[in-house]
Amino acid sequence: MATAPSVSYSMTVRLEVPASGTAVSQLTTAVESSGGSVTGLDVTASGHEKLRIDVTIAATSTAHADEIVEKLRGIEGVTLGKVSDRTFLMHLGGKIEMQSKHPIRNRDDLSMIYTPGVARVCMAIAENPEDARRLTIKRNSVAVVTDGSAVLGLGNIGPKAALPVMEGKAALFKRFAGIDAWPLCLDTQDTDEIVAIVKAIAPGFAGINLEDISAPRCFEIEARLREALDIPVFHDDQHGTAIVVLAALTNALRVVGKGIGDVRVVMSGAGAAGTAILKLLLAAGVKNAVVADIQGVVHTGRADLAGADADSDMAALRWIADNTNPEGLTGSLREAVVGADVFIGVSAPNVLNGDDVAAMAEGAIVFALANPDPEVDPGVARETAAVVATGRSDFPNQINNVLVFPGVFRGLLDAQSRTVNTDMMLAAATALANVVTEDELNPNYIIPSVFNDKVAGAVAGAVRTAAQAAL
Amino acid sequence: MATAPSVSYSMTVRLEVPASGTAVSQLTTAVESSGGSVTGLDVTASGHEKLRIDVTIAATSTAHADEIVEKLRGIEGVTLGKVSDRTFLMHLGGKIEMQSKHPIRNRDDLSMIYTPGVARVCMAIAENPEDARRLTIKRNSVAVVTDGSAVLGLGNIGPKAALPVMEGKAALFKRFAGIDAWPLCLDTQDTDEIVAIVKAIAPGFAGINLEDISAPRCFEIEARLREALDIPVFHDDQHGTAIVVLAALTNALRVVGKGIGDVRVVMSGAGAAGTAILKLLLAAGVKNAVVADIQGVVHTGRADLAGADADSDMAALRWIADNTNPEGLTGSLREAVVGADVFIGVSAPNVLNGDDVAAMAEGAIVFALANPDPEVDPGVARETAAVVATGRSDFPNQINNVLVFPGVFRGLLDAQSRTVNTDMMLAAATALANVVTEDELNPNYIIPSVFNDKVAGAVAGAVRTAAQAAL
Repeated sequence: MATAPSVSYSMTVRLEVPASGTAVSQLTTAVESSGGSVTGLDVTASGHEKLRIDVTIAATSTAHADEIVEKLRGIEGVTLGKVSDRTFLMHLGGKIEMQSKHPIRNRDDLSMIYTPGVARVCMAIAENPEDARRLTIKRNSVAVVTDGSAVLGLGNIGPKAALPVMEGKAALFKRFAGIDAWPLCLDTQDTDEIVAIVKAIAPGFAGINLEDISAPRCFEIEARLREALDIPVFHDDQHGTAIVVLAALTNALRVVGKGIGDVRVVMSGAGAAGTAILKLLLAAGVKNAVVADIQGVVHTGRADLAGADADSDMAALRWIADNTNPEGLTGSLREAVVGADVFIGVSAPNVLNGDDVAAMAEGAIVFALANPDPEVDPGVARETAAVVATGRSDFPNQINNVLVFPGVFRGLLDAQSRTVNTDMMLAAATALANVVTEDELNPNYIIPSVFNDKVAGAVAGAVRTAAQAAL
Repeated sequence: MATAPSVSYSMTVRLEVPASGTAVSQLTTAVESSGGSVTGLDVTASGHEKLRIDVTIAATSTAHADEIVEKLRGIEGVTLGKVSDRTFLMHLGGKIEMQSKHPIRNRDDLSMIYTPGVARVCMAIAENPEDARRLTIKRNSVAVVTDGSAVLGLGNIGPKAALPVMEGKAALFKRFAGIDAWPLCLDTQDTDEIVAIVKAIAPGFAGINLEDISAPRCFEIEARLREALDIPVFHDDQHGTAIVVLAALTNALRVVGKGIGDVRVVMSGAGAAGTAILKLLLAAGVKNAVVADIQGVVHTGRADLAGADADSDMAALRWIADNTNPEGLTGSLREAVVGADVFIGVSAPNVLNGDDVAAMAEGAIVFALANPDPEVDPGVARETAAVVATGRSDFPNQINNVLVFPGVFRGLLDAQSRTVNTDMMLAAATALANVVTEDELNPNYIIPSVFNDKVAGAVAGAVRTAAQAAL
């Protein structure tokens, strides 16, 4: 699978080249012959002898970017200056900030925003704590909480290294739903401590977005917090993903003309996302689901599940064994996909090949969501499957949580919801699926773009209605 | 002490009055004869029969505002509409928000701010955690942490009711020092839990501002966090107050021509602020300090201090007994102030009267900082004292923490300081005192206004230099 040059590996290289001669055209040739692409070329200083040029280049990886720089260095007459990475430049000093909503120009402003005027607002809330939802940031704020244990596909990189992701998440909350989110990156991976901390910080927030916390701890943390708190707690890696997958599957089934209760769904991956997807699909009406993990198909007779009870680390897998696989399949993932209608992968690269996809039922649906490298090459899968989706932005049908979490929280906050439940998530998935009209629907457009401006409002409205019904 | 109408008790009253006749002039008369003041009068709709008028009124208290509204209701022909409280209007939905620094317009923006580009920034920080101070919000962010146990003068009103104060504090951090602060109002008042929580949330912040946590827990919480963390921890109620008091005292002593090592300082109050003021004054060179609490002068022979060891709740008071009162005074506060050069009150209203101040030494300095009602009426004190300061904005020489905390944190953040120590606080006090020039200095101007635009920069510069020296 060839990867196209991406702006996320974009750099600006400052060069001096001779004013006459072919050095400038050699620059472009050098970049393009290395597989990069020139996205900008600015002459920043010009003289009789020399030109100073800033060349902005998209590469496919860090190593590729280094390789291109070396190519440029080799051109005769070229002096290499500073190499600036555009992504890093954007991160300098962080991506988000705090703003005051009111100017503080004089003593009068100060006496209303701070002492002595603020005291009356405090006393009003002390007398009626529910007023905090009206008179404070609690109305519109969400804590984005991580312990840095499962950040993107990078693994357990810790709280400081997780910050750029959480800042990005906060920026997306504002961009797509007008929500004020602040990152809290915790220097502990102890379940009890995380639960205690989130409980303690809850008074200032209207919702908790758990993020990038590894399984199986994420299940217990979320369950205990939902039990303890009077604000919704939503682990986006689980439920955000599950809602987008259900929306995409709903539309993919419309494309192939199959009913959700009639298909056999085979899943690869039983981690946080996999488990949540499975549960939401079952709630949406899937009757025949089969899950495989690294040991193969999950079934009640599997040796590693024999002793698993509700308190063990295997509890989640045991639950899967008890609630899926009605035909009692055993063996490998490869064997399970033969004749299956739907494959959903949230696991690892290249666990299937083109022959496996070809062995699926007529009108097969393949969601290969491992990032950056899918469970099966989407180009190959598309040769026989009717619908293919991935987690990548450079193929059609990107399954992206950004389609879901802003609207879900907007709806929860607007309803002042104290919980988030399966009905609300099903409503979100239906609303997201319905953004794609009958006229628009086709195998390469089962899910709208992140920048489709109908998405967040549609999801928010559906969640708000479902949340109000739950009050 | 008469109180002037204040904008912090300001309301807008919507009225309908007959278009002809004297009703409009009666409105103003009614407000003013009740002791209020009309700060705005807008006709929002006019007809042949009726006028609709929005009258904005400043009152002295909530009860006073209610009284004025009743007076207006009594005017013949007037129909009373909605009464809006300006301070509450300003608090609707909270006073602060989160903003993204970069627009997210398209796929390219998204791929640099979020996945996949953000992954490279995460990995850079994972390899070198110090880079978090360069590539994330950690560079410029402060957590404002409270447990709601000692909010303003309102007492233990809990975390939700404390939020408006913490939001105001965050707004002031931005206004005066460009710092991104976010409030964390904790639903626990357990010392161990608070310490664990603040330790855990520290990775995303460059400093911790503890706020409105009651004594003696605040001492232990701060001490343990300073020991545990690699970012500065500053309890503003203690040290912010101490720095402003030292700055004001420095200038008051210039006014009366006395040296800091030569004066006898009598303090009323041994809580968080009192203890911190005392320690900073001793560090600044005060040799003769005497502290009184509700039981009278603190001395080593006092019965309640006999069994106090370092681990008891009385430890702070025991420390005071051991480190003050070199002449071994006993008895009441009133007895101790006889002949004293300086009185500093951080305690309760009206513990002294005019005769007590008259009994102080020639060139007496009185800081009566209890809010809203000082330890002695400042007008009466000024009859015999050379310099008087209070915590109120409606008298000269307001001792206000806003003069200190923004600049202190700006300096600490600019120096990427891992600590805050006494040298830095002394430097802040000196810088703040020096903002008042020899030409400006007089008994009614020993401390600059909060809106003096030299203050934050001067304090920040001094703290930065001291912090760099401590590296």
